[in-house]
Amino acid sequence: MPVAEKIQNYMSKSSFIREMFEAGARLKAEVGPENVYDFSLGNPDLEPPDEFNQVLHELVDDATPGRHGYMSNAGLPEVRGQVAAFAAREYGQQFTADDIVMTVGAGGALNVVLKTILDPGDEVIVPKPYFVEYDFYVDNHQGVIKQARTNPDFTLNLDNVAAEATDRTRAVMINSPNNPTGVVYPEQNLRDLAELMEKISARTGRPVMLISDEPYRKIVYDGVQVPSVFTHYPYVVCVTSYSKDLSLPGERIGFIASHPDMPDKNLFMAGLILNNRILGYVNAPALMQRIVGRLQGRHVDVDIYRRRRDLFVRGLQDAGYELNVPQGAFYLFPRAPIEDDVAFIAVLQQENILAVPGSGFGGPGYFRLAYCVPEDVIERSLPGFKRARNQVI
Amino acid sequence: MPVAEKIQNYMSKSSFIREMFEAGARLKAEVGPENVYDFSLGNPDLEPPDEFNQVLHELVDDATPGRHGYMSNAGLPEVRGQVAAFAAREYGQQFTADDIVMTVGAGGALNVVLKTILDPGDEVIVPKPYFVEYDFYVDNHQGVIKQARTNPDFTLNLDNVAAEATDRTRAVMINSPNNPTGVVYPEQNLRDLAELMEKISARTGRPVMLISDEPYRKIVYDGVQVPSVFTHYPYVVCVTSYSKDLSLPGERIGFIASHPDMPDKNLFMAGLILNNRILGYVNAPALMQRIVGRLQGRHVDVDIYRRRRDLFVRGLQDAGYELNVPQGAFYLFPRAPIEDDVAFIAVLQQENILAVPGSGFGGPGYFRLAYCVPEDVIERSLPGFKRARNQVI
Repeated sequence: MPVAEKIQNYMSKSSFIREMFEAGARLKAEVGPENVYDFSLGNPDLEPPDEFNQVLHELVDDATPGRHGYMSNAGLPEVRGQVAAFAAREYGQQFTADDIVMTVGAGGALNVVLKTILDPGDEVIVPKPYFVEYDFYVDNHQGVIKQARTNPDFTLNLDNVAAEATDRTRAVMINSPNNPTGVVYPEQNLRDLAELMEKISARTGRPVMLISDEPYRKIVYDGVQVPSVFTHYPYVVCVTSYSKDLSLPGERIGFIASHPDMPDKNLFMAGLILNNRILGYVNAPALMQRIVGRLQGRHVDVDIYRRRRDLFVRGLQDAGYELNVPQGAFYLFPRAPIEDDVAFIAVLQQENILAVPGSGFGGPGYFRLAYCVPEDVIERSLPGFKRARNQVI
Repeated sequence: MPVAEKIQNYMSKSSFIREMFEAGARLKAEVGPENVYDFSLGNPDLEPPDEFNQVLHELVDDATPGRHGYMSNAGLPEVRGQVAAFAAREYGQQFTADDIVMTVGAGGALNVVLKTILDPGDEVIVPKPYFVEYDFYVDNHQGVIKQARTNPDFTLNLDNVAAEATDRTRAVMINSPNNPTGVVYPEQNLRDLAELMEKISARTGRPVMLISDEPYRKIVYDGVQVPSVFTHYPYVVCVTSYSKDLSLPGERIGFIASHPDMPDKNLFMAGLILNNRILGYVNAPALMQRIVGRLQGRHVDVDIYRRRRDLFVRGLQDAGYELNVPQGAFYLFPRAPIEDDVAFIAVLQQENILAVPGSGFGGPGYFRLAYCVPEDVIERSLPGFKRARNQVI
């Protein structure tokens, strides 16, 4: 068998998701894809904004020598400067190009950060439910995830975070706006977290890093502002991508921003840059770097997602589902009408509805719906949601 | 200190290279970059061929929805088909799209392959001298490199490979045309290696994978054909990129091709695709995938590199240096006139010449020169090479 035992285990563990995916594919083949209501994938269906195509066309005509060549592993200096200027406005800190590393999406960014801070056995506290890939990313670098349950409204529960802290704690990793819940952590929540992290750092004698994964930062509703994670604590690193706000997930472009006032920052940045190289990313794709550099702060029309959210939330509530109204991202995370969320997903599938059980995110008893689909798909799916609920209660 | 001990060790170990790099930068600041002969970087200075810009312009005008969106972690099906058709012609095997995974360059490809086959402590035999990044790539997945010295002409020494085989051997990793030596392994060498690998596999009771890293495959001279690694053995995986042949190293695009007849191939491919995802690459950049899909077999004008090689080889031989004339890639690997290659690099630096000591590649007593520079730089550097040699012998 030419495959490592560890990877064989991964594959047999993830076979449940594969089976679900295959069941969905079978369903589409049977009844036609237009008759399947697929809410399983967080894949933005909106096209990139017009400015993206404008800049792409301009850059394609630029014949500067070496524009597709190697560069510093940190990325193109001018692009890092453009990102720093945006980050300074967005977070109210004095970012410079030296605080920024361009990366192969947020997935690349998270791996670079985790490899930089984790020795084998070091622990990362993650509020749950959380994005499933975190398990792999932490394990890639021989770290260990410690799960801290959130409050019923999915905000941070500081007691639960504190309970997971040990001498091996190296980081707390948060994601707001959140996948899968759509919650945005309020300012006071972040302030309390910073205070707790100061305490843990003091007790263990080494700084605990706050890793803030923010790819949905610009996908927010109802005038909500996502508070800055940099305000109350110096050991903070933000990772993000342009996958959701510019609808470019296939192009693999994102960045890491480190707190300008982090003690030992030069060492930390050198670690990030080394790891961007030795993990095989080498640098973020050159052409896309130049494009996003000129599109700082731009995003797709968020109102389209907002209308879908409103339609979906109202429809599900009318059908009797309990759920928190999310303030950001493009997910709903309703409570399953029965305790067994996996069983309920199977009931939804009988109605040609594809969703992901909360268990997959460390949130059993719930299920995730991604509304990266046109409004009419949501609308047409609602009777099925109603029937599914009536069938089980 | 917010940086893992392991990474701090890496950085202190690599400080020598950083110092060299910084010394080079200081030199350029002092005497002007035009007066420094920089042969330290394997960064292609030729622009991508005209066809690249043609295809780029065409694709930029293509408005197909979802063209920058997520896709299978293996890559775009049509591009995998285009690559498979090329690989079938190039290697004489029946490749299909199912044998191909598009990757974030060859660096990404190597990490995906290594994670797929290595459990902690598993060993990878590498002929030395070799590309320094291999140390990091194998260590990323808790593997161990076993070095097997090559023959004096840098071809594979099978006895030395055999001597490194143990029960933990999981792979042999080769690179032909080679960085840093420029050697192309002859057909008989590969046949003997395949035979040896059959024996090791039989003895240890599990298949040993041949990993062939081939980014320089199309940069060859004097009508040399790089033999196919797929001919004599079924457990073979080739990784490559378009960084050198299309001069696109900044765009991070490459692929993995697995032997069509590998036993348990479906499991192996599923492992590759999973790891492309969970290592945070997710998929190869979408736009670049489409471009290279249409440029199969194309490459920069190799004759430009050939002329530089000839000029450089002749000049160094005239100056009294001993070296093998490389058949591929864009590196020379001459013997240093004194045993201490690091000391000799310092002597060259006094002549404003930047080179890399062979010790950095596991080849002490030699030094590496990358001829990714115009001919006039080579020409103007030759008196300096002569003086440096005369100074030390």
